[in-house]
Amino acid sequence: MEEAIRALTFDVFGTVVDWRGSIIREGDEFNRSHGTSVDWAAFADAWRGKYRPSMEKVRTGELVWTNLDALHRMSLNELLPEYGLENLTEAEKQHLNRIWHRLAPWPDAIAGLERLKRRYIIATLSNGNVALLLNMAKQAGLPWDTILSGELARHYKRDREVYVMAADLLGLPLTQVMMVAAHPDDLQAAKNLGMGAALVRRPLEWGPDKLVQVEAHAAFDVVADDFVDLAAKLGA
Amino acid sequence: MEEAIRALTFDVFGTVVDWRGSIIREGDEFNRSHGTSVDWAAFADAWRGKYRPSMEKVRTGELVWTNLDALHRMSLNELLPEYGLENLTEAEKQHLNRIWHRLAPWPDAIAGLERLKRRYIIATLSNGNVALLLNMAKQAGLPWDTILSGELARHYKRDREVYVMAADLLGLPLTQVMMVAAHPDDLQAAKNLGMGAALVRRPLEWGPDKLVQVEAHAAFDVVADDFVDLAAKLGA
Repeated sequence: MEEAIRALTFDVFGTVVDWRGSIIREGDEFNRSHGTSVDWAAFADAWRGKYRPSMEKVRTGELVWTNLDALHRMSLNELLPEYGLENLTEAEKQHLNRIWHRLAPWPDAIAGLERLKRRYIIATLSNGNVALLLNMAKQAGLPWDTILSGELARHYKRDREVYVMAADLLGLPLTQVMMVAAHPDDLQAAKNLGMGAALVRRPLEWGPDKLVQVEAHAAFDVVADDFVDLAAKLGA
Repeated sequence: MEEAIRALTFDVFGTVVDWRGSIIREGDEFNRSHGTSVDWAAFADAWRGKYRPSMEKVRTGELVWTNLDALHRMSLNELLPEYGLENLTEAEKQHLNRIWHRLAPWPDAIAGLERLKRRYIIATLSNGNVALLLNMAKQAGLPWDTILSGELARHYKRDREVYVMAADLLGLPLTQVMMVAAHPDDLQAAKNLGMGAALVRRPLEWGPDKLVQVEAHAAFDVVADDFVDLAAKLGA
């Protein structure tokens, strides 16, 4: 099966970058510079907790197409008063909202991607909007061949339109594209369409107190402990 | 003005890659291996000559949205009998059609792009479809941050939708994006929307017997002799 794979498409939040750790680190700096004492771990979890419900509003048509920057901002507006941050300036709010553009990769991600890029086309396939993913890649040094996003299909994963759009733009049949993610439902959605599926374990996505364990699953063609392990298992 | 520019979007055929020289070189190899004596310079010019008329059929609605691979193939089907190549196998025709995925960059292009990439977001903004541009980049080593294409807007340049889509996906106002091209009409279309415009001279695009000379023009913010010169002039 792996012989036929030409391109790898990557989930990003949690799979490539450590959104929770990144928000905590930048938030702690914010506390020091602003003299605040926000619990940024709780803030990060609450913000991310609003992610799926906000996309669901788009999926059901309650909201017209709205990109992730705008959804993040709607969620942020709800959270700020709960954390005593309602008095931030508009510029500060915009800067905070763009923290998702500044997330740091897991330590193995760049080394693994550099190896995988030699053998495969490597592209994002994320619910993040293109600008978010591009700014993140520039800042972090993620060596994508191109940025693919649900934004290009005006759909959010796990809608099938997102995966089909990716294969279509790559000029490949779905069977020659492998989805890489830390999340079984993303992989299952890809697998249902005939794509390959590689699980990369990210037990720390939700922090050390909520270790994520994913059971082996028939939908996974490959299971890897990190991106370097994935490169080895995919012959790159 | 240049202070504000955050991203450069590049025309590709003629500006980044030497389509004519590439087709002649690969065509000459074809002649040797197939024992044919096709005039590949004439073939390349005739194929490229059908480019704008074919896009015009999409623009006027005579054809529904059709990507460039498919337009190239329609033009190729017309040309093959004229050059005694009607007996190619379907696999050979497909391989020949994908010659546009295998075009070689002008000698200065990669060095210039590497420099520009350190300071700016660099993206294609071509009428080539995403897969074509991506395969070309992989083969040639073009270091794009991402691939943008008229295909994403289902429009061809010089339709305004293409330029507006690019700025929108980059998350930037049009005034912070600069179009780079060897073709004045592409730059004029960008300039009309408020984008920056950089001319890179490619006098050899149509071969040494038809040197292209572009006069200075008020629409050009920068005029460069090649991509290394462009990097120097944009402070990269």
